[in-house]
Amino acid sequence: MRNRLRELGYFAAILGSSLALACSQPEADSPATTRPSAPLASWQDTAPKRAILDFVRSVTASGGADFVPPEERIAVFDNDGTLWVEQPVYTQLVFAIDRVKAMAPEHPEWQTTEPFKSLLDGDMEAVAASGERGILEIVMATHAGMTTGEFEIIASDWLRTARHPRFERPYIELIYQPMLELLEYLRANDFKTFIVSGGGVEFMRPWTERVYGIPPDQVVGSTIETSYEIRDGIPVLMRLPKIDFIDDKAGKPVGINKFIGRRPILAFGNSDGDYEMLQWVSTGRGKRLSLIVHHTDAEREYAYDREGHVGRLDKGLGDAAENGWTVVDMKTDWKQVLAAAQ
Amino acid sequence: MRNRLRELGYFAAILGSSLALACSQPEADSPATTRPSAPLASWQDTAPKRAILDFVRSVTASGGADFVPPEERIAVFDNDGTLWVEQPVYTQLVFAIDRVKAMAPEHPEWQTTEPFKSLLDGDMEAVAASGERGILEIVMATHAGMTTGEFEIIASDWLRTARHPRFERPYIELIYQPMLELLEYLRANDFKTFIVSGGGVEFMRPWTERVYGIPPDQVVGSTIETSYEIRDGIPVLMRLPKIDFIDDKAGKPVGINKFIGRRPILAFGNSDGDYEMLQWVSTGRGKRLSLIVHHTDAEREYAYDREGHVGRLDKGLGDAAENGWTVVDMKTDWKQVLAAAQ
Repeated sequence: MRNRLRELGYFAAILGSSLALACSQPEADSPATTRPSAPLASWQDTAPKRAILDFVRSVTASGGADFVPPEERIAVFDNDGTLWVEQPVYTQLVFAIDRVKAMAPEHPEWQTTEPFKSLLDGDMEAVAASGERGILEIVMATHAGMTTGEFEIIASDWLRTARHPRFERPYIELIYQPMLELLEYLRANDFKTFIVSGGGVEFMRPWTERVYGIPPDQVVGSTIETSYEIRDGIPVLMRLPKIDFIDDKAGKPVGINKFIGRRPILAFGNSDGDYEMLQWVSTGRGKRLSLIVHHTDAEREYAYDREGHVGRLDKGLGDAAENGWTVVDMKTDWKQVLAAAQ
Repeated sequence: MRNRLRELGYFAAILGSSLALACSQPEADSPATTRPSAPLASWQDTAPKRAILDFVRSVTASGGADFVPPEERIAVFDNDGTLWVEQPVYTQLVFAIDRVKAMAPEHPEWQTTEPFKSLLDGDMEAVAASGERGILEIVMATHAGMTTGEFEIIASDWLRTARHPRFERPYIELIYQPMLELLEYLRANDFKTFIVSGGGVEFMRPWTERVYGIPPDQVVGSTIETSYEIRDGIPVLMRLPKIDFIDDKAGKPVGINKFIGRRPILAFGNSDGDYEMLQWVSTGRGKRLSLIVHHTDAEREYAYDREGHVGRLDKGLGDAAENGWTVVDMKTDWKQVLAAAQ
């Protein structure tokens, strides 16, 4: 149990930040997946774009020294802060908080028990003070106790109706246009693209195929345990209040091995939670490419790195040059940041 | 720990059987993947072949009532006894026993400690008597304590050199020709084919793509825990002596959800270890197909079902008709059983 709690750092880190909660308005979602004809059209013609084009040219050049057969062209992408916006707080935490509020009428005991009381009072400092045990209780109360099918409906409904507080758009529209182009460019060159995220795998799978073109079986993430049961004569998978796997930090190479079973040749992250993944990829034999999104654009998105609790990038930024990792400066390397509303 | 031991039933079941061990001769392996032009050429024109052709026609008929979009055409296959021979004992157990023998010189203590002493003495009854704790020790001694890369080499070397005691061919040649044709036929109809096996995932991944056309990330199986470590300045994944997940019985639908994230529309198994997987697939909404290989051919392969410890098929055989599962009689439904030597 102590280990499990330690692993919850991913969820714990986010609570130190002030929480700006999204308001909910029912409205159909509209994923933004524009497909410009030139590869990487939203990338400036700067070093990162050239590094990507060079890399793909090298590993696909049949007979070349760096050629990689198509089946080994595995590319892994973090999600929060790499493919979609993670500020002011991780989307899945906003979901958990909204769920506590929505479920509160059925849980009168939450009015007097922590961390639910503080959460319902809007006192996030007190929620944070409840520590990892408190976070675990919030996650479990909102993510377990239903079937996998029921959870998919709950998560999908929320994602369809919730709006980001600043951009006032559905969260699944707050995706980076340059990354959509990169995913597509890689797949056009016979790469298989995977998400490797600290987020809950069943919070992502309902929409990643539609939004990113990444099918459910290519989404690696944190998991809770499930049990196979026959309920009223019908087989179901029940989500249990027990962490199965945290796909963050050193858990990312572990998750890559467990779920993908092949060492990727390209990795893209944005925070120190991606450090070990980038390291695992860049230290493999042969030509490799590891990249980091550096959030430098407060105007079009957000500017943050070494400070704060969401997507902190400190060690990775310091070691990038030495490790041969490419840092993508959002402000100077991307012509466009967010995908256009569809 | 008690739970983990209970889960080891898969490994425990095999030890009651008498063990015929393969002798080792170094020789290059030669996978057998003949590709006849007519679909399912090695299947007799009997009910199972017609059921498969009907099913695929229905789910691929654009505009039809049973149409399933390509991205949802997920097919799952057990491995031992469904795709390759599992008699007289599961191949992975033969591997474990051979490994104990090969490692014995470095472990003088095994001469006097159980279950290793009995195993080295050839007394498999005594090994079985050591119970699940004994099996766990054998599995851990042979499958943990090395990096993932080292284990891949060990497993690949063994599979290249070991020979099946009866057929005197490499184990990865002892695959069923009709199943190779089915895998290919399904993929030609835009199915994504997965293995969902009780066997160790890293024992299968080195060869499933070459032999079955199934890439590593589409192999679901039992796993042990790994840890990401820096050893002599180089990142490695160490295999730990701790079971992570047993992908057998009710673990199969759990594994399908965890690794694939989508409910399959076709499942193929052969033993009661596949019961819950077949049930999970056949009770889904829409048109589904669940099939069982019934080993009825002692002449060309083996004949077994309700008795014995390897691949026991009792409940599944009894419930197949009621559950709407198609039973494939190896003797009467398959023109050819094993793939030709290449």
